[in-house]
Amino acid sequence: MRLVDALRRRPLDRPPIWFMRQAGRYLPEYRELRQRHSFQEAVHLPEIAAELTLQPVRRFGLDAAIIFSDIMTPLEAMGVVVEFAPGPRLEPMTLQQVADLPEIDPERFRFVTQAHEKVRAELPDHVALIGFAGAPITLLAYLLEGGGSKEFPAMRSALHRSPELAARALANLGRGMRVYLQAQLSAGADIVQLFDSWAGLLSVTAFESFAVPAARIALRDLEAPTIYFAPGSAHLLDRFPQVEATGYGVDWRLSLSAAWQRLGEEAVVQGNLDPMVLLSDPDTVSGETRRVLEEASNRPGHIFNLGHGIHHATPVENVEAMVRTVQGGHG
Amino acid sequence: MRLVDALRRRPLDRPPIWFMRQAGRYLPEYRELRQRHSFQEAVHLPEIAAELTLQPVRRFGLDAAIIFSDIMTPLEAMGVVVEFAPGPRLEPMTLQQVADLPEIDPERFRFVTQAHEKVRAELPDHVALIGFAGAPITLLAYLLEGGGSKEFPAMRSALHRSPELAARALANLGRGMRVYLQAQLSAGADIVQLFDSWAGLLSVTAFESFAVPAARIALRDLEAPTIYFAPGSAHLLDRFPQVEATGYGVDWRLSLSAAWQRLGEEAVVQGNLDPMVLLSDPDTVSGETRRVLEEASNRPGHIFNLGHGIHHATPVENVEAMVRTVQGGHG
Repeated sequence: MRLVDALRRRPLDRPPIWFMRQAGRYLPEYRELRQRHSFQEAVHLPEIAAELTLQPVRRFGLDAAIIFSDIMTPLEAMGVVVEFAPGPRLEPMTLQQVADLPEIDPERFRFVTQAHEKVRAELPDHVALIGFAGAPITLLAYLLEGGGSKEFPAMRSALHRSPELAARALANLGRGMRVYLQAQLSAGADIVQLFDSWAGLLSVTAFESFAVPAARIALRDLEAPTIYFAPGSAHLLDRFPQVEATGYGVDWRLSLSAAWQRLGEEAVVQGNLDPMVLLSDPDTVSGETRRVLEEASNRPGHIFNLGHGIHHATPVENVEAMVRTVQGGHG
Repeated sequence: MRLVDALRRRPLDRPPIWFMRQAGRYLPEYRELRQRHSFQEAVHLPEIAAELTLQPVRRFGLDAAIIFSDIMTPLEAMGVVVEFAPGPRLEPMTLQQVADLPEIDPERFRFVTQAHEKVRAELPDHVALIGFAGAPITLLAYLLEGGGSKEFPAMRSALHRSPELAARALANLGRGMRVYLQAQLSAGADIVQLFDSWAGLLSVTAFESFAVPAARIALRDLEAPTIYFAPGSAHLLDRFPQVEATGYGVDWRLSLSAAWQRLGEEAVVQGNLDPMVLLSDPDTVSGETRRVLEEASNRPGHIFNLGHGIHHATPVENVEAMVRTVQGGHG
């Protein structure tokens, strides 16, 4: 598998390509299927989740599928009630309540492992299946806030006010996510990615004290390559290696060479086209894609990706231009 | 004036303190006055704007007042119609329309200079008055999007699609803001700050190509010290000096010592307590404030501030704890 090879830093004729939110609203076939199923329904029905997962791979011949799901989904299996309207909404919790959440119950995320089995059965052997989870500090941000937020004040003040209890709450989430990630690997995932969407809000000190130990619990001893992704985290890049993932996703803010400088020249790096470039036109997209490729200059350990999820208004022809440019003669 | 002295890197017994959004909703006297005036009214009535500007200085004995206004306000004087609901809302514009905006008309922002005159007349001599403007790339983000956004796709794709036209639009905004900043200085401001709230979304390359030249136009040849502030910009700090401001505001993500390393050890640095610390309790606030002070260790060229605007739910007693800790024996 090209993606696994890149994570092992094996030499390749071109980098693997997949992109975040590739199973999403910009695709007509996604919108068509979602007309009949709400987001929550689509996540909970293995047939539908599997079909949405496969759509972009069929259309673009990508090197990986990523399971259609949400980072809040496994929290249901720890007893948290989450709604989507359309972002996640829930009763705001205290640190103590998060620390006291029961052990994750694999019976209650069976629909996710079933979706993995269905996808793996249909996916060509050379295409990797990526399972994923939210990193503990990001999940904690949603749980304390009761949903999305630009600034996540509840999480950020809680770390300062009650550091010991925060560490306990984070460790509890980390243990749950580890079980969840391992279950996805057992059900057919080849790789897992940990999404730390809001770690970038933390100071370097808070990242090292809280986010890193919890992310390490989530990834500990998994029997497959892992990717850690945290956007808006240029100030944290030189601390990412403490997470001990196999590879690291970076956004478009720093050039790939600057990212390698901070992560270490031997690091596996995933990225980093600005998804908003895909709102322009095929020529601009090809040019900017080539710029990213030239910067990586086919060194071992590069995975081509966007620096963040694709925008829902992206024209499909621009995605095609990006994929063609990366795959070149080497489909 | 303590703030001007700090900007001149003169030795001081303690750093000056003011904080972003200090005239704001966390203050009971602010909420009381705002019950009688909408945000737009308060900005447009010099008496009210002046009173709101003075409130936090009276209560806390701060070293600076910052004029109560909004970064979108001067755009009215370039013919843009902006509403607040409560964030800015306007008809989305094209790059061409922004490039074609007429020269700013000082008659149409007279209420701002009048507010400056009123504040300066009442403010003790040792307290600085800060005028401000939005940086061109941040204003462009709002103008193309038609309001606030988490990701500002319109601005980010426009820079890639039409770089020359984008540069013209930015230069036009820069010229307008320069006139506006100079008018505030003439009306009694001692210092001006340029708020570049969304520059942190840009890659290093885009920042150097678009944001820097436009910010330089806005600050060119102003006859007073200037501060450039862009949150979420750890990846840009080593390029900030290209803006040629007198001092640079930084958020809480990097420690002050790391910020000095990147900005240059001779730089004037403003910051950087995480405003969310102020949602905890007075003891935690005093402790974290002391940490910031210890890191600056009273070197010349430090201005104490929050790393971003104060949160509206901040208890006043926590603000008092912060101010007392900074001022210590040296009111």
